Amino acid sequence: MSIESNMNITKLPLGFKASGINCGVRRYRPDLALVYSETPCVAAGVFTLNECKAAPVTYCQSIVPSSTVRAIVTNSGQANAATGPEGIENNLRMAVGVAKELGCAPNQVLTASTGVIGQQLAIEKIVYAFPELVRRSTPDADLFSLAILTTDLVPKTASKDVTLSSGKIRITGVCKGSGMIHPNMATMLGYIFTDVTLSAEMAQRYLKRAVDVSFNRISVDGDCSTNDTVFLLANGQSNIGIQNSSDEEIFFQGLVDVSQALAKKIAIDGEGATKLIEVTMTGAPSQQIADKATRGITVSPLIKTAIHGEDPNWGRILARVGAEGVPSAAIEKMVLRVQGQLLFENGRPTTFDRAHVRELLKANVVKIEIELNSGDFKSTAWGCDLSEKYVEINTEYTT
Amino acid sequence: MSIESNMNITKLPLGFKASGINCGVRRYRPDLALVYSETPCVAAGVFTLNECKAAPVTYCQSIVPSSTVRAIVTNSGQANAATGPEGIENNLRMAVGVAKELGCAPNQVLTASTGVIGQQLAIEKIVYAFPELVRRSTPDADLFSLAILTTDLVPKTASKDVTLSSGKIRITGVCKGSGMIHPNMATMLGYIFTDVTLSAEMAQRYLKRAVDVSFNRISVDGDCSTNDTVFLLANGQSNIGIQNSSDEEIFFQGLVDVSQALAKKIAIDGEGATKLIEVTMTGAPSQQIADKATRGITVSPLIKTAIHGEDPNWGRILARVGAEGVPSAAIEKMVLRVQGQLLFENGRPTTFDRAHVRELLKANVVKIEIELNSGDFKSTAWGCDLSEKYVEINTEYTT
Repeated sequence: MSIESNMNITKLPLGFKASGINCGVRRYRPDLALVYSETPCVAAGVFTLNECKAAPVTYCQSIVPSSTVRAIVTNSGQANAATGPEGIENNLRMAVGVAKELGCAPNQVLTASTGVIGQQLAIEKIVYAFPELVRRSTPDADLFSLAILTTDLVPKTASKDVTLSSGKIRITGVCKGSGMIHPNMATMLGYIFTDVTLSAEMAQRYLKRAVDVSFNRISVDGDCSTNDTVFLLANGQSNIGIQNSSDEEIFFQGLVDVSQALAKKIAIDGEGATKLIEVTMTGAPSQQIADKATRGITVSPLIKTAIHGEDPNWGRILARVGAEGVPSAAIEKMVLRVQGQLLFENGRPTTFDRAHVRELLKANVVKIEIELNSGDFKSTAWGCDLSEKYVEINTEYTT
Repeated sequence: MSIESNMNITKLPLGFKASGINCGVRRYRPDLALVYSETPCVAAGVFTLNECKAAPVTYCQSIVPSSTVRAIVTNSGQANAATGPEGIENNLRMAVGVAKELGCAPNQVLTASTGVIGQQLAIEKIVYAFPELVRRSTPDADLFSLAILTTDLVPKTASKDVTLSSGKIRITGVCKGSGMIHPNMATMLGYIFTDVTLSAEMAQRYLKRAVDVSFNRISVDGDCSTNDTVFLLANGQSNIGIQNSSDEEIFFQGLVDVSQALAKKIAIDGEGATKLIEVTMTGAPSQQIADKATRGITVSPLIKTAIHGEDPNWGRILARVGAEGVPSAAIEKMVLRVQGQLLFENGRPTTFDRAHVRELLKANVVKIEIELNSGDFKSTAWGCDLSEKYVEINTEYTT
């Protein structure tokens, strides 16, 4: 715990255990992480759309949704992507190794990797560490949350207790961000655990919907990794199921809350980032327009740099809204607020107090709100500012 | 000429004259530019797809293609975008003012603006300067090329003499880049002049095709302006027309050469850029895939920073190729070369001499070549590296 001495303990739901240790791939930091359920659980997964998929991604895609998963093992430091047949073999050895320790079948063990592309896994070191990894497992998520990190500055966890009609269940999430670093790229990995009773089909459906409004709504730099994965494991250890549509709604909202909390933590921990940017569009003529425009604003280097400079630069926002295909008729009716301050309406800028808005932009969270007055659709996206530090981190100087 | 003392003179085609002066909107630099033809000419135009279009863009769209255009007037410093009815009126006053000086109708005068969004034009200063602007016109493009600049570091011109079956004609192009700066954004403006005889329909068709393989293949930061415009004017003053398909091919290639030369000048003059990046994909299974992937590589912050750091980071390129939807089967057969050096083939990295490739990456032009061995389609895109300087330029610090 020395890396994050004031960390709060994040408890896993009933029946889950986790651990994180250093197996020797990285110099000092934990680099091997395990979470497992004492009983088989339902597992769902959402995976990168990148056509160049890492070995663990194609492996897990062949397994989920499933009702018999026991564990997920993750190594950090090497992505096991672009590694050919040897990579597939090494990935399988991770599953086999953990299965042996837990006394289950290899296809009950999911895998994830994050780190350098194109390097073969240091598989002997990894496999050698499995007995110790299992031995050290506890009901807390914290060492696990450290061991999956690469360039992230802080571990990311979120937990929520939710009361359904027959009792309380827990949803606990852990993730790492899409920090990208020498010599290649890292990954967005998300893990959500719950002790509710769910079918595999429901788990997959809920997870997909929750990811769509959380992890799929964040951007650090617009690049999409070979390894991006979000898992949901539900082990039913609370003996509480989803009885009715009210339960369904409450559980799903809990899942969204945990997912969005994690997603925002990724955005604010973007490389070089100093501010979280939250963009909300309402009154859009279609969902597609709202999703595209909010996302477009969060990836615009011009808007990201302006916010880094605490500059209420409405013109860049307006231009991006237009570039993303928001119809000119809707732009005419657009109302733009930044930090709650009205900057643009009726087709022209307002006379706002620039110094005051600048002052408000010093906050760690910057809210951009766009009302199009042209329909009933809305969307939110999160991103971060773009600083010189981002370039510095991603530029590998030869000196 | 004090700004660029060693500039070569760029001659316009027969019958064109141009000028550039300071009308007082900007402090010192020329900020008002005119080009006109002594006789009416054919005019074609390609315009921004941004839904938020500046007043001159919607005005010119209502005129071209045309066979009676006499002039294009351009002001720099103010974009006349998001300026409402007053902006439309001011834009019209520009056309009317120039038309009066040239003795033609207002709709024979095209307009363009570049600079700050949301400010009304200093229209009195602009109109007042028109007589002087016309008086100073010469057969050279150089003062014109200076007066249209905003944050560009250097003026951009390209000229080519082309021999058709009945004689020689000239194609001269001038442009400014998509430098984006406080408080809003600037614009890509392109102007191509030729003394060949063309129909308006042919001019529009050729221009569209040429823009598709030049200006539409460059990226500085992925943002798309409210004012982007490329014009083609053909005045027939050479008395030479396009007689056959061979002439057609030669003329079109000349137009492409001039357009690509200008486009590359924009990319290398991107804000903070130190290197031109040229990405070529061959053997692609479709044109769409080739276009999307090459463009995706030129906008990737991860690839742009790696090249800035002169790092042969093949993993980032591979990941982006996958993210842009190149099928995994094609990635398996992909051959990647950077600066002519083989970095990746047969689904895995080669053992290349990293120090040697780093040395080659010190060049001002970085070539990334991708052979997919999966079809007959190919595409090229140009971009620039991403440096701390870009962030510095686009971050308006409050101090």
